[in-house]
Amino acid sequence: MRPAFRNAYFNLSRSLNPNPTKLSLPPFSLHTFPTFSTSLPPTFRTFRLTAETFRPLSPSRTCCSYSPMAEGEAHAPPTSFPSLEKQFEVFRVQLEDSGILREHIRAVVMEIESTTRLIHANLLLVHQSRPTPELLEKAKAQVGVLKDLYNKLAVVLSECPGQYYRYHGDWRSETQTVVSLLAFMHWLETGTLLLHSEAEEMLGLNNSEFGLDIEDYLVGICFMSNELPRYVVNQVTAGDYDCPRKVLKFLTDLHAAFRMLNLRNDFLRKKFDGMKYDLRRVEEVYYDVKIRGLATTSDAIGEQGIEGQS
Amino acid sequence: MRPAFRNAYFNLSRSLNPNPTKLSLPPFSLHTFPTFSTSLPPTFRTFRLTAETFRPLSPSRTCCSYSPMAEGEAHAPPTSFPSLEKQFEVFRVQLEDSGILREHIRAVVMEIESTTRLIHANLLLVHQSRPTPELLEKAKAQVGVLKDLYNKLAVVLSECPGQYYRYHGDWRSETQTVVSLLAFMHWLETGTLLLHSEAEEMLGLNNSEFGLDIEDYLVGICFMSNELPRYVVNQVTAGDYDCPRKVLKFLTDLHAAFRMLNLRNDFLRKKFDGMKYDLRRVEEVYYDVKIRGLATTSDAIGEQGIEGQS
Amino acid sequence: MRPAFRNAYFNLSRSLNPNPTKLSLPPFSLHTFPTFSTSLPPTFRTFRLTAETFRPLSPSRTCCSYSPMAEGEAHAPPTSFPSLEKQFEVFRVQLEDSGILREHIRAVVMEIESTTRLIHANLLLVHQSRPTPELLEKAKAQVGVLKDLYNKLAVVLSECPGQYYRYHGDWRSETQTVVSLLAFMHWLETGTLLLHSEAEEMLGLNNSEFGLDIEDYLVGICFMSNELPRYVVNQVTAGDYDCPRKVLKFLTDLHAAFRMLNLRNDFLRKKFDGMKYDLRRVEEVYYDVKIRGLATTSDAIGEQGIEGQS
Amino acid sequence: MRPAFRNAYFNLSRSLNPNPTKLSLPPFSLHTFPTFSTSLPPTFRTFRLTAETFRPLSPSRTCCSYSPMAEGEAHAPPTSFPSLEKQFEVFRVQLEDSGILREHIRAVVMEIESTTRLIHANLLLVHQSRPTPELLEKAKAQVGVLKDLYNKLAVVLSECPGQYYRYHGDWRSETQTVVSLLAFMHWLETGTLLLHSEAEEMLGLNNSEFGLDIEDYLVGICFMSNELPRYVVNQVTAGDYDCPRKVLKFLTDLHAAFRMLNLRNDFLRKKFDGMKYDLRRVEEVYYDVKIRGLATTSDAIGEQGIEGQS
Repeated sequence: MRPAFRNAYFNLSRSLNPNPTKLSLPPFSLHTFPTFSTSLPPTFRTFRLTAETFRPLSPSRTCCSYSPMAEGEAHAPPTSFPSLEKQFEVFRVQLEDSGILREHIRAVVMEIESTTRLIHANLLLVHQSRPTPELLEKAKAQVGVLKDLYNKLAVVLSECPGQYYRYHGDWRSETQTVVSLLAFMHWLETGTLLLHSEAEEMLGLNNSEFGLDIEDYLVGICFMSNELPRYVVNQVTAGDYDCPRKVLKFLTDLHAAFRMLNLRNDFLRKKFDGMKYDLRRVEEVYYDVKIRGLATTSDAIGEQGIEGQS
Repeated sequence: MRPAFRNAYFNLSRSLNPNPTKLSLPPFSLHTFPTFSTSLPPTFRTFRLTAETFRPLSPSRTCCSYSPMAEGEAHAPPTSFPSLEKQFEVFRVQLEDSGILREHIRAVVMEIESTTRLIHANLLLVHQSRPTPELLEKAKAQVGVLKDLYNKLAVVLSECPGQYYRYHGDWRSETQTVVSLLAFMHWLETGTLLLHSEAEEMLGLNNSEFGLDIEDYLVGICFMSNELPRYVVNQVTAGDYDCPRKVLKFLTDLHAAFRMLNLRNDFLRKKFDGMKYDLRRVEEVYYDVKIRGLATTSDAIGEQGIEGQS
Repeated sequence: MRPAFRNAYFNLSRSLNPNPTKLSLPPFSLHTFPTFSTSLPPTFRTFRLTAETFRPLSPSRTCCSYSPMAEGEAHAPPTSFPSLEKQFEVFRVQLEDSGILREHIRAVVMEIESTTRLIHANLLLVHQSRPTPELLEKAKAQVGVLKDLYNKLAVVLSECPGQYYRYHGDWRSETQTVVSLLAFMHWLETGTLLLHSEAEEMLGLNNSEFGLDIEDYLVGICFMSNELPRYVVNQVTAGDYDCPRKVLKFLTDLHAAFRMLNLRNDFLRKKFDGMKYDLRRVEEVYYDVKIRGLATTSDAIGEQGIEGQS
Repeated sequence: MRPAFRNAYFNLSRSLNPNPTKLSLPPFSLHTFPTFSTSLPPTFRTFRLTAETFRPLSPSRTCCSYSPMAEGEAHAPPTSFPSLEKQFEVFRVQLEDSGILREHIRAVVMEIESTTRLIHANLLLVHQSRPTPELLEKAKAQVGVLKDLYNKLAVVLSECPGQYYRYHGDWRSETQTVVSLLAFMHWLETGTLLLHSEAEEMLGLNNSEFGLDIEDYLVGICFMSNELPRYVVNQVTAGDYDCPRKVLKFLTDLHAAFRMLNLRNDFLRKKFDGMKYDLRRVEEVYYDVKIRGLATTSDAIGEQGIEGQS
């Protein structure tokens, strides 16, 4: 699928569709404005209607891909309307639609950020005492909210097929934080890394066209790694002398796995470089514990997660 | 189409899929490498082969979406391979594929940049003398080269449907320059603005999934505007006292058309702000010509272009 | 009126009200949420409802000034709830309310910006030809839209009495542009400066608690001044040799008036400094016209405005 | 209450109003100075007289809202005085009044800053030895001075109702420091967080229209947090091995409470981000003490404050 702006400007994109059965459907039947408005939560509908007060929308116009002017042009002699103005009118509509789409994205992202804050505040309690199932249960309850919000985001983006990366910057930072929290929760529960597929599963993205970008996932994992030295220090303080060993094993494997990657993304590379310091700090804590004879000699690390292991 | 990284991971997931019916489907039939190589122009095939010398590709592997591990895994028990390492191996392949794709893009973009430089050097001559058809003819000859290069780029990108905007930053700056040159040439010839559709036509993008981003087009037009004050000054110096009036009319219309747009893109907005100074400078030149009684009183601006008018 | 955050945290502010009749009214009867939602356009209502899905609002809670916790506290023993958490819960609600208010402001400001763009694009045409009544009529039609939008903004702000300057930064830049356009229109029509009171009248702010900040007005006037040299150049080019004299007189008076002010506001001072260059440029144009014997000797400047004078 | 600059201009506009029926109304009945001045506390009247030594004020002129010109004008024909000059004369007076108000604020803020420096210098001694009641007693004595100064500031601001946030930037930085010191003192004495209401109580702001901005309070609390790692290090050095545990508990609760807030204020968010490092540092000190078996096993943290606990 080519970028959606093409659709707007060139109604010939319709005829490019290789599937002939689609040509007999009313144009843009899947993405027409009415469908959009009814499938969206009330907030969006209203927002859309406000936008309409400034510019009437033809019923078959999709959010960011169709211009009524192009339609009209087919019936009017092209020479009657200066092409410069006509083109900029199309652009104006498209840029406005793109702006409206960004507002929709922004609204959902603000809700994601808000939910993330609740999960974070809750998870921070693991630094004070050992994580309890109730604490994780509370956090998990919010994951359902996140799932709904990512579904909302996927719906918004589904209006503009092929433009995931056009608007990616608008949700990537929040998504990285979401991954870090999900991964920390998962690690507390199972002692293992939350996989990309598992993160998508938790966020309900596995059946969707809207996926979790791999680099966002990796940055989120780096953020989780940053939390581990502090966790180890606090667990040792609380008397869990076996924690450093377990964390060290996990972090070493994780670091080695990252090492395999050819990271060209500057931000991800920088975050990964920070993981080295996390690893070093955990090693030092393990050393402190060992040299004082505080560590247990057990080496068995089961599947029951961190909280049940100590 | 969902982002292609999904393909990579999901192709893996497919083989991990407990549902055996999916395994009987021909794997990756739409994106297999053979199709890719046969559909490419000779030059590209060679490039591809070069890329292969770095990392052998299995015949059924697509450029940025397939991992051989997934294939092997279908026959091996999933528990025999730690999921952490397995996932990072998939990532490694994907990031490497993405890196290779970027190299392909980069190679084409360097050729575009090189061709653009030739056109630019040629077009600069209009500042010294009146533009002649030969001068434009030379520049136009290079446009054919550009067209081939954009076709190459489109082919490279066609491997990764829905990821136009993922790699967009890799060619956008050069494309903006290309647009500015094409638009300047077009204006010299016709006295009118090169439309977005005409720019796509010139670059052979009108039948392709790979389009010209509107903001890139608009930035290119701003760049062209930056060239006009200098052109006007030099034309007046060369004795063409009617040039300021014609350029002023063109630039005023263009500026007014831009004014209607809600520019949220910071770079584009900044470039547009610069157009105001171009306009002012041309107005000042027109003022100088007028106040000295040098301007002709003719008001007819035909369709025969700038070069034929003076 | 004290800052509204006081109301939220201290229900004692109610008892501070010197007007005893107000104490017998149901608390916050003027600013309760139901009133707010019914007096607002649909967009806001929906937005508010979305916010509610995260946090139930008590019926008597105002947008940014009341916390249900404070209420509950009156009935519950204060020692039963840790004061730290309680306080931060109040803050959380207040900061969220403040955020919602900012969203409301932002939505209106975006509409103001959009309307301003239309007026600007229309007014730019005066640089091409002499201003015609139709052109001004078109622009004036949009002023009605602006008036409605400022009324909307005033309604939003009326929810938070005494906090005009808390959120002032959220609309000040757009308002400065609005003033510059209104003042330019007014000058084109009457040849005189749009007064502060007239600007408020045009924006429907004269009967409202929500006024036009003087410094915003002054910055807007500076922006209008920046437009005048260009106007003069274009008018002379078009053959109106009397325009420089009239503009010069206007600008000289304006500059002299500004000179009287003790400007401590850095931005305003900088903008005013720019006015000196506008003045100088207009003087130069007037000089060019005079020295060539193009200026008329007429010195009468009537009340009929610029467009009717030449 | 509308911004006070409105009063100034609108009182003027009233007398400028060509509608003679308005002129027969008692002028300025709602905003006249006599009513205003009798409602002021005695201190302010004195302060007012001091201000007058700089610039004689007509008896009916308020600090930032009234121009004597308006009065005189009521008796003169409006056409005899050009509106442009008249308006700027009003502005001149208003900007001058605003400047004088800022000078008043500045004078008080400098005294606040001076008193704060004394308290700070005194409190710094807690890093060298254990805090003694005498040390806190000395600091508390200065709090009375601060209270008087904030009362002065409140009186100055009471002249301009609804403009708290217009001048807020003039005292916010100093107030943040004041809060940090008060909170540190309070914590040393009680081991608990100084609440917003308690801070206002200490500064005598609880019965005033002039309150303590919540974000200023929160920034002040962040500043206090920055002091704690140093305090802990010095206390452990001095042999108080139980201090880290107590501080850690306090800081963890504080950090978790902050986590719930949706911080849009960039400065506050940045300061809060710094709190994480304070927390981490205190955790590290606690870890050092624990791993060496130096920490006491006591877990009781009473209400008697930090100084009495060790």
